[in-house]
Amino acid sequence: MDFSISEPLLALQQRVRTFIREEVIPLESDCRQGPHGPEEGLRRVLIERARAAGLLSPHVSPHYGGMGLSHHARAVVFEEAGYSPLGPIALNIFAPDEGNMHLLEAVATPAQKERWLRPLALGEIRSCFCMTEPAPGAGSDPRMLATTAVRDGDDYVINGSKWFITGANGATLAIIMAVVPGSGATMFLADMSAKGIVIERTMDSLDTCFPGGHGVIRFDHLRVAAADILGAEGSGFSFAQIRLSPARLTHCMRWLGAVRRAHDIAVDYARHRHAFGRPIGEHEGVGFGLADNDMDMHSARLVIMHCAWVLDQGDLALRESSRAKVIVSEAVWRVVDRCVQILGGRGVTGESLVARIFTDIRAFRIYDGPSEVHRWSLAKHLLKSPPSPEKHHAPD
Amino acid sequence: MDFSISEPLLALQQRVRTFIREEVIPLESDCRQGPHGPEEGLRRVLIERARAAGLLSPHVSPHYGGMGLSHHARAVVFEEAGYSPLGPIALNIFAPDEGNMHLLEAVATPAQKERWLRPLALGEIRSCFCMTEPAPGAGSDPRMLATTAVRDGDDYVINGSKWFITGANGATLAIIMAVVPGSGATMFLADMSAKGIVIERTMDSLDTCFPGGHGVIRFDHLRVAAADILGAEGSGFSFAQIRLSPARLTHCMRWLGAVRRAHDIAVDYARHRHAFGRPIGEHEGVGFGLADNDMDMHSARLVIMHCAWVLDQGDLALRESSRAKVIVSEAVWRVVDRCVQILGGRGVTGESLVARIFTDIRAFRIYDGPSEVHRWSLAKHLLKSPPSPEKHHAPD
Amino acid sequence: MDFSISEPLLALQQRVRTFIREEVIPLESDCRQGPHGPEEGLRRVLIERARAAGLLSPHVSPHYGGMGLSHHARAVVFEEAGYSPLGPIALNIFAPDEGNMHLLEAVATPAQKERWLRPLALGEIRSCFCMTEPAPGAGSDPRMLATTAVRDGDDYVINGSKWFITGANGATLAIIMAVVPGSGATMFLADMSAKGIVIERTMDSLDTCFPGGHGVIRFDHLRVAAADILGAEGSGFSFAQIRLSPARLTHCMRWLGAVRRAHDIAVDYARHRHAFGRPIGEHEGVGFGLADNDMDMHSARLVIMHCAWVLDQGDLALRESSRAKVIVSEAVWRVVDRCVQILGGRGVTGESLVARIFTDIRAFRIYDGPSEVHRWSLAKHLLKSPPSPEKHHAPD
Amino acid sequence: MDFSISEPLLALQQRVRTFIREEVIPLESDCRQGPHGPEEGLRRVLIERARAAGLLSPHVSPHYGGMGLSHHARAVVFEEAGYSPLGPIALNIFAPDEGNMHLLEAVATPAQKERWLRPLALGEIRSCFCMTEPAPGAGSDPRMLATTAVRDGDDYVINGSKWFITGANGATLAIIMAVVPGSGATMFLADMSAKGIVIERTMDSLDTCFPGGHGVIRFDHLRVAAADILGAEGSGFSFAQIRLSPARLTHCMRWLGAVRRAHDIAVDYARHRHAFGRPIGEHEGVGFGLADNDMDMHSARLVIMHCAWVLDQGDLALRESSRAKVIVSEAVWRVVDRCVQILGGRGVTGESLVARIFTDIRAFRIYDGPSEVHRWSLAKHLLKSPPSPEKHHAPD
Repeated sequence: MDFSISEPLLALQQRVRTFIREEVIPLESDCRQGPHGPEEGLRRVLIERARAAGLLSPHVSPHYGGMGLSHHARAVVFEEAGYSPLGPIALNIFAPDEGNMHLLEAVATPAQKERWLRPLALGEIRSCFCMTEPAPGAGSDPRMLATTAVRDGDDYVINGSKWFITGANGATLAIIMAVVPGSGATMFLADMSAKGIVIERTMDSLDTCFPGGHGVIRFDHLRVAAADILGAEGSGFSFAQIRLSPARLTHCMRWLGAVRRAHDIAVDYARHRHAFGRPIGEHEGVGFGLADNDMDMHSARLVIMHCAWVLDQGDLALRESSRAKVIVSEAVWRVVDRCVQILGGRGVTGESLVARIFTDIRAFRIYDGPSEVHRWSLAKHLLKSPPSPEKHHAPD
Repeated sequence: MDFSISEPLLALQQRVRTFIREEVIPLESDCRQGPHGPEEGLRRVLIERARAAGLLSPHVSPHYGGMGLSHHARAVVFEEAGYSPLGPIALNIFAPDEGNMHLLEAVATPAQKERWLRPLALGEIRSCFCMTEPAPGAGSDPRMLATTAVRDGDDYVINGSKWFITGANGATLAIIMAVVPGSGATMFLADMSAKGIVIERTMDSLDTCFPGGHGVIRFDHLRVAAADILGAEGSGFSFAQIRLSPARLTHCMRWLGAVRRAHDIAVDYARHRHAFGRPIGEHEGVGFGLADNDMDMHSARLVIMHCAWVLDQGDLALRESSRAKVIVSEAVWRVVDRCVQILGGRGVTGESLVARIFTDIRAFRIYDGPSEVHRWSLAKHLLKSPPSPEKHHAPD
Repeated sequence: MDFSISEPLLALQQRVRTFIREEVIPLESDCRQGPHGPEEGLRRVLIERARAAGLLSPHVSPHYGGMGLSHHARAVVFEEAGYSPLGPIALNIFAPDEGNMHLLEAVATPAQKERWLRPLALGEIRSCFCMTEPAPGAGSDPRMLATTAVRDGDDYVINGSKWFITGANGATLAIIMAVVPGSGATMFLADMSAKGIVIERTMDSLDTCFPGGHGVIRFDHLRVAAADILGAEGSGFSFAQIRLSPARLTHCMRWLGAVRRAHDIAVDYARHRHAFGRPIGEHEGVGFGLADNDMDMHSARLVIMHCAWVLDQGDLALRESSRAKVIVSEAVWRVVDRCVQILGGRGVTGESLVARIFTDIRAFRIYDGPSEVHRWSLAKHLLKSPPSPEKHHAPD
Repeated sequence: MDFSISEPLLALQQRVRTFIREEVIPLESDCRQGPHGPEEGLRRVLIERARAAGLLSPHVSPHYGGMGLSHHARAVVFEEAGYSPLGPIALNIFAPDEGNMHLLEAVATPAQKERWLRPLALGEIRSCFCMTEPAPGAGSDPRMLATTAVRDGDDYVINGSKWFITGANGATLAIIMAVVPGSGATMFLADMSAKGIVIERTMDSLDTCFPGGHGVIRFDHLRVAAADILGAEGSGFSFAQIRLSPARLTHCMRWLGAVRRAHDIAVDYARHRHAFGRPIGEHEGVGFGLADNDMDMHSARLVIMHCAWVLDQGDLALRESSRAKVIVSEAVWRVVDRCVQILGGRGVTGESLVARIFTDIRAFRIYDGPSEVHRWSLAKHLLKSPPSPEKHHAPD
């Protein structure tokens, strides 16, 4: 094993860090931000700065305008980007677009890539992934998928309801998961301006960091051509697996960066605010919280790095990404909650960025599979396989 | 010991419960609510309804228009009121006004009571308590009080900065804690319209349930007459102790009601939402969360009731209220966090009331003494006293 | 509500406290203790001292030689007794005998009481409760009961295996749970010297506080007369419910006393041991632990008292005792674990009593229903009943 | 970064695994084990088997009879050895001997190495490290060292008391930390048979896995030659630092192996024991516990591996080993506690190995610095340094 980071990657990390500090953080107070995320105008400014810095779409291959980073390198870069809520938007690696680009690059036809991946990678358009449905449809349990796509000549006609569709408002591309009767779950590509796609409303959410917020969508006889199937009819779930682990993991990377920011703010406060005769950080009630933050972030980073490495070996990393999702989402939650507590009154107000990170991050224990579903899936794996001792860090 | 609730109190509990359900909850969707709390117009409607129902200011003596409830009875009634974020406003028992009325009734002169307590108890005006200061002033450590009140003839001239002053915006009465050089901390009563009181801004806060939000205030040569001292010069902290335990405890009562609401919503959801072949409540990952909620609320309620009983015995209950503050604030936080998790995506959006309770309640682990300060104070008590076994539930 | 303890009960509490301190604690270093509990000779000495002090069998009615205490009074007295591992043995209120006496007094025929209850209450004999079975029999799930009792003339012939039978070794009376084909679970009374009862071995267990330890028993054509049925054929589970809640709760009472002892030892140590320039208790890492102990014990005591009160109202208190079992068993575990940590090296050795309490108490999260089973049962209750708000502290 | 394990190391891992399973585990039921650890006769058998298998003293350089493994390779091998409580004894890598050999190899003179390291590495003798003192001496705070070594001609005369001296009983070599007035803490090598070394008693401890148990020692005018100083006069603490991080970390490695064993036992039980209609592992209350075990062990292993890598870079890894100590000691504790709970009654008895691992492991949260001291030291580091973002996994 080797835990070192290569010199070129360290240099890239430094470049991103500098870019975030000098080009992105100053925009955090830009007024073009609201309950449903940063506005398109602000996003354009951010994209432009990243392009100028040569940091746009680092996860996409150079052929489509990106940097072609490995999962390992993404772990380094995305954490740096996450240090500002605007960082992932600038680098064009926010959710769900980052995962959608990854999926398109892996699965789409060359024509589909030209039409959708290229403008996405250039930051010209945005996209959404239409999977989650209101009751009694598919929430945590994907097998409850209720949206249907019925073959009609060369087309499919899609009907159904979706919600929590991140980025829907303002998106150009929709990737839609629907059941083709007789074949099963299938992914379709559609232009959000198509007749039959109705954004009913944008939901009020605790988080305010995703461009476009979270939409409620109705498909009302949406007509999609067979050529717009992504992957193959009936293989929606298996192709979506390609997106699954990396998308989970990039959330982990970005949020780790976010809580590192919260932690730095808390450390700074703990050094300078006095109470009961000394800097509050010298009271163990505060100091231990900082130490626990340090340990939580350290473990989280290692778990992310390990999973990224497994992905880089060509493995789907379903088990590793389940572990990472639970470990990291719960660790970052503890970290930001401690930061709120350490900051006291400041922590629950807009006086620092910490409250914003706090509300932005809560949903991460829920989306991409709530902790409970991942725990259950890990348990099933443990109960099924022979009681073999861990094969250490080789992918399994 | 006797854990029964008297018949009249059970009847009152039922009346409040009905009032909240029928008169208050329907107003939760009233648009007159914003980031800095419900507006005055909505508050007036609520107050009017409570007055009509005979439920206004239950903690104030009948002489000043209230119901004269014991602390024990308050525990029952305030929990019911807390079931809606608007309930405490309707009954005129929200913070800080409820505690301010309690303090005025215990300490103020008859003239002061007529001038301030009476209109407060009738819900005609609002008040604020100006204690907390920005660094390097008094935060968790009250001895760092930096605001001064200097004698000048028959008056005092007050200078200093305060923040996190709940309800400042729209308040008529300010209770101000300031240091009189040579005498020590002293409380003053002032009209918020007085020259020398400047509300610099209202803070952005996670909670949105307090009328007037949380203000930043500057006292700029504010002149207060000696007759407007509350209590006596130099005795600010000792008189404030009268407010301390009850105010902590009524927070506990109201927030317990709030998370009972969240829990009821979660139980209802767990019964009706299906995943993986059954109602999600039948999955232990969800059901155990509900059971833990039940146990947390049960313990919290008992601890509140015990502390209320100690207060009713005439004790200051400093130790009991420290315990209650930590136990209850941490228990209700766990409860609402579990409810968010159980509701999944709904839990982090405005689709239910739970997200609002979640953001409203976080600060409770911080105000009225953060958990860390209470733990330290409990530890000091344990280390100081002789190692006597607990005298059970007699006040100690 | 009223949290006061009556004067006579306070006096009794004081008597028990003095008795434990002066008559019982000095015997803690008596060598007649081993891995399978205190020996009979030591038990006799303890019983004799309690009899002389007028404190024997406080839970049994005076008619059979006890003090006839209410559940509430037991809560006070048993906690005091639990302050020493030998206290419950002295007062004749250790498990399983205390619960067995309770059951016999409630269910047995007058003849059965004369034969078994009287000598038990006088401390002349010991008893065991033969319920738990090795796989694939009844463990956490009582419906898996595999021991059978087949009618044969006026007798029943019992066959089966039991384990974790506390007190089996040295017991005179066995209460046996077995399935009568066609009727269901039934309880039988038998003399342990009867032909057909084989104690195969005594198990090695973490706890060493139960006289007789935990036995593995085989019933090999054990013949029991119909007159030795306890209760009625087929009603074993329903009659056992009478034992259920009180037995759970008295465990809570005794173990609360035990961890109060550990806490007192830890407080004393935290006052006197210095490190890094001051008594270790003044380091928040230690002081906060003491404060958490204080709060855990406070909540636990209130939950016990409440459940005792519900039992005193004549209720079975199944839900309340489930709550109490989980809340208290987990709270006392946290307390003793913190004490171990505070004592450092001393905590993991025989240098103080804490290590013994630590190993004695671990099993309490498992026996009388592991936490998981109680959580599940609480969840079922929550999901089944209409979503009614808590009826506070009236039994429900 | 690279998380793969080299082929030769995987092969060695497999060899150790097989050795533990076939040569060591069968000896776990050997009767030559008691409250103060395995007896010398059993140790000799184990050593002999490891020698025959070519696995003796893997951490020592080949020159002195070992395998010369890197810290990284030790992580792999020691975890495998820890899978049995007897494994570390067989491989001659138990505490404190493993750390003592490491220290001697790094610091001792050639003559000292010949005299002490060689027979230690061959498993011919045992050793102890005499640091910890009873109050008011050095416990968690090494600066309170009270044992003195006073120069007298060419000798030093040592007086003082030590306790928790692991392995003292039966050891041949003692490494003694004592204060030389005017110079400071100094390490001395002494033969345990020397006049002036009195083993007063062996302590009763929760753990029973260390050969020789934990001794209380008195130095009564022990005379040691200047040539027997280890390192240099006054440099005891700085030289001991060489031992510090590796010794902490090898504890982590061994205990991780131990809880992996407990976990495997729990998984096996969860598959085969039925309750409430299915294998208990299919109840989430149990299955989630297994999943949490899996995640805790995964994080722990990564943190160990990272720290080992930092050590292999030549760094003292004080901060990394503090983190690892806290993270791993608390994770393995959670794991084994969950295993106890899953096993139910079996978990708290000798019916499986889990109870033994449970009691063996508790002290690990205390020795080599209790969690509280490491948290404080981590906090100090955070508060001191400039708020630089983490340099990832490069040593810092």
